[in-house]
Amino acid sequence: MMNKVINSFLRQSHRSYSSIAAAAIQKPMAGGDLIAVDFEANTGIATMFLNKPPANDMDVDMLDEATNAIKDAQKNSRVKGIILTSILDWGVFTHGINIMDVYKSNKRNDSYLSELWDHFHDWFVAWYGCDKPVVAAINGNASSTGCIWALMCDYRVMLADQKTKIGINDTQMGIAPAPFVVDLVRSVSGSRHAEEITLGGRLLDAEDALRTGLVNEITPKDYLVARARHQLQQLIEIPPEAYGATKLRLREPLLRNITAKKESDPEYYQQPLTHLS
Amino acid sequence: MMNKVINSFLRQSHRSYSSIAAAAIQKPMAGGDLIAVDFEANTGIATMFLNKPPANDMDVDMLDEATNAIKDAQKNSRVKGIILTSILDWGVFTHGINIMDVYKSNKRNDSYLSELWDHFHDWFVAWYGCDKPVVAAINGNASSTGCIWALMCDYRVMLADQKTKIGINDTQMGIAPAPFVVDLVRSVSGSRHAEEITLGGRLLDAEDALRTGLVNEITPKDYLVARARHQLQQLIEIPPEAYGATKLRLREPLLRNITAKKESDPEYYQQPLTHLS
Amino acid sequence: MMNKVINSFLRQSHRSYSSIAAAAIQKPMAGGDLIAVDFEANTGIATMFLNKPPANDMDVDMLDEATNAIKDAQKNSRVKGIILTSILDWGVFTHGINIMDVYKSNKRNDSYLSELWDHFHDWFVAWYGCDKPVVAAINGNASSTGCIWALMCDYRVMLADQKTKIGINDTQMGIAPAPFVVDLVRSVSGSRHAEEITLGGRLLDAEDALRTGLVNEITPKDYLVARARHQLQQLIEIPPEAYGATKLRLREPLLRNITAKKESDPEYYQQPLTHLS
Repeated sequence: MMNKVINSFLRQSHRSYSSIAAAAIQKPMAGGDLIAVDFEANTGIATMFLNKPPANDMDVDMLDEATNAIKDAQKNSRVKGIILTSILDWGVFTHGINIMDVYKSNKRNDSYLSELWDHFHDWFVAWYGCDKPVVAAINGNASSTGCIWALMCDYRVMLADQKTKIGINDTQMGIAPAPFVVDLVRSVSGSRHAEEITLGGRLLDAEDALRTGLVNEITPKDYLVARARHQLQQLIEIPPEAYGATKLRLREPLLRNITAKKESDPEYYQQPLTHLS
Repeated sequence: MMNKVINSFLRQSHRSYSSIAAAAIQKPMAGGDLIAVDFEANTGIATMFLNKPPANDMDVDMLDEATNAIKDAQKNSRVKGIILTSILDWGVFTHGINIMDVYKSNKRNDSYLSELWDHFHDWFVAWYGCDKPVVAAINGNASSTGCIWALMCDYRVMLADQKTKIGINDTQMGIAPAPFVVDLVRSVSGSRHAEEITLGGRLLDAEDALRTGLVNEITPKDYLVARARHQLQQLIEIPPEAYGATKLRLREPLLRNITAKKESDPEYYQQPLTHLS
Repeated sequence: MMNKVINSFLRQSHRSYSSIAAAAIQKPMAGGDLIAVDFEANTGIATMFLNKPPANDMDVDMLDEATNAIKDAQKNSRVKGIILTSILDWGVFTHGINIMDVYKSNKRNDSYLSELWDHFHDWFVAWYGCDKPVVAAINGNASSTGCIWALMCDYRVMLADQKTKIGINDTQMGIAPAPFVVDLVRSVSGSRHAEEITLGGRLLDAEDALRTGLVNEITPKDYLVARARHQLQQLIEIPPEAYGATKLRLREPLLRNITAKKESDPEYYQQPLTHLS
């Protein structure tokens, strides 16, 4: 399946299967089993395919692979920009952290949850603090922490079809999103829509996601990859030092806040979930 | 008159007059003369009707009844959500604090103004800090502190007709809105429109109110109640603990700021009005 | 040329050439050679024409004249409001600070750059802190610090034609915009568009500038002056004390921040440019 989807992805980007075979499957740049990374030497684009059926669950293993993949891309001077997408072809970008895991850990009262937030924190800082251009090609549902992943990218192209949805549906599941999630949504959608999105907890279709600023662009399936690549190419052409410095400048308040919170307040992430126990 | 209007309101919500007679008129839940409260046991919806002809002036008495009504609703576990509307059928939601009272007090140099701001503060904290869903059915003009009341609700449905207006028209009356008002408008409409709204001081018709985010939805008269009830029902269905925690999380910065100001700086509210004396 | 352009400008505002001859050319209110100021006694409108061919470069001299002009307008009780526009009729509002000057100073390692930021700071505080209504009539390209100048005005009318552009194109030139620039764009366009505008560094045409909130209104050439004057007139009619207090209240956080930074951190402005040396 992975070969078929990557192949289709690459056909849209006018590349042959042979190049992907070498890059993403046989010898991924930095990905493991859960994230297949395809690197194009000529463009400097690293495409990261989420590959954890059935829903790209963001458990500790997935978070770690994701953290390592972006850190490697950050360090590798040949990588000019990153595309984040899903390899699953049944309409899933990622459903984020599995709520049942959280419920169960809360019941067991074990350390899973605190461990999870630890890895989550590192993942957040690595992706949000990456100073290279990152574009999300949202080719399936992106809910809760899955939506957060997309929001951390610099530009979001979303599949416009009847069923693909995006949103922070935490309240609907009985969870209050963490303060930094509220801040992140605010920084992307503005205060007005952030309240609607985080409080109402509805999942939005492509039209509503565009209207509220959750995504920058919506497109039919056949153009998704081409549009994501086009936008990334535009960002890659900006002098990288200026791009990186400006990106970090924009994100500094939130990055500083989440880092300070982690050290001073281990309850920062877990707090929203305590009422579930 | 009150019976007639409430009756019409309830007919639109498919309830019989008999239920309202018991609830809002003969035995209001917590309201006094100035705010009639109708409570529906089966839905958990408490509708609060502003009832202070001719313009629902927000004087000390009105503020106190409003504070008590929302505090009672907050404490009463049977209340799932609140609708705020006006009982007056001549196109007035509320004109807010009566500016002439403020002028006169300034001239007399008496304690009315400082007393007013004291009650205003308690009212603001009680309404803005209520963690249950609150929807405004704006069925008439909402200006200055009247607009603020609507903005403190979680969702605003506004009557779309030729004459209903909403806005912070303080500057037009020679008053600079308080800093927390600016912050509130920013949190609802975003920075861009907040500047236009608070600086220009124009009252906006329904179309402009929707465009600038002052309200979430506009509707012809016949659908106003139904739309407000529908939206409130959606919010009520969200797990209340998650809803409440998220709502307070979104509002915490402003609530903390206004509370700190009150203690440290009694001039906080009065300052904008001193140049009128 | 100056007479011809001002004349055309004034014809659109239904004034005769004779009045401008006295005011802007023979006896400018406070302008020098680089900024011609025309003052209309009957309306209280001071129009400031940028006049430094070929691109209204914002060098130390231009910044100083601009600072003096707005300070004089601020102090002069007969001035009710200000229009900022360009006298150049080849499609230039202002290109802002000349990047080549900055490059050269960096190479020479002399004091020009630090001197420039000093004057820039005074200019920013004087214009952003002016409490009278200021409207920009953007009749040509406004890029980088030229765009900032327009953003500091209270209302922006932009010429809608095929070639006029506006934006913060710093990243495209290899420069990271200063933190206060990011904050300024945020306060005008909201967080969402601020990221797109400052990170992507694209110059926007009138339609995109309107969509992202960089300008309030776009108009064909024949209506530019009339629309700017109309909007300014509206703002002038608001009681000035209330207008001024509200304007400063909205801008206080950014003004306080930039003032604090200047004293504590001389690197604040220069920092973005060090990588160019």
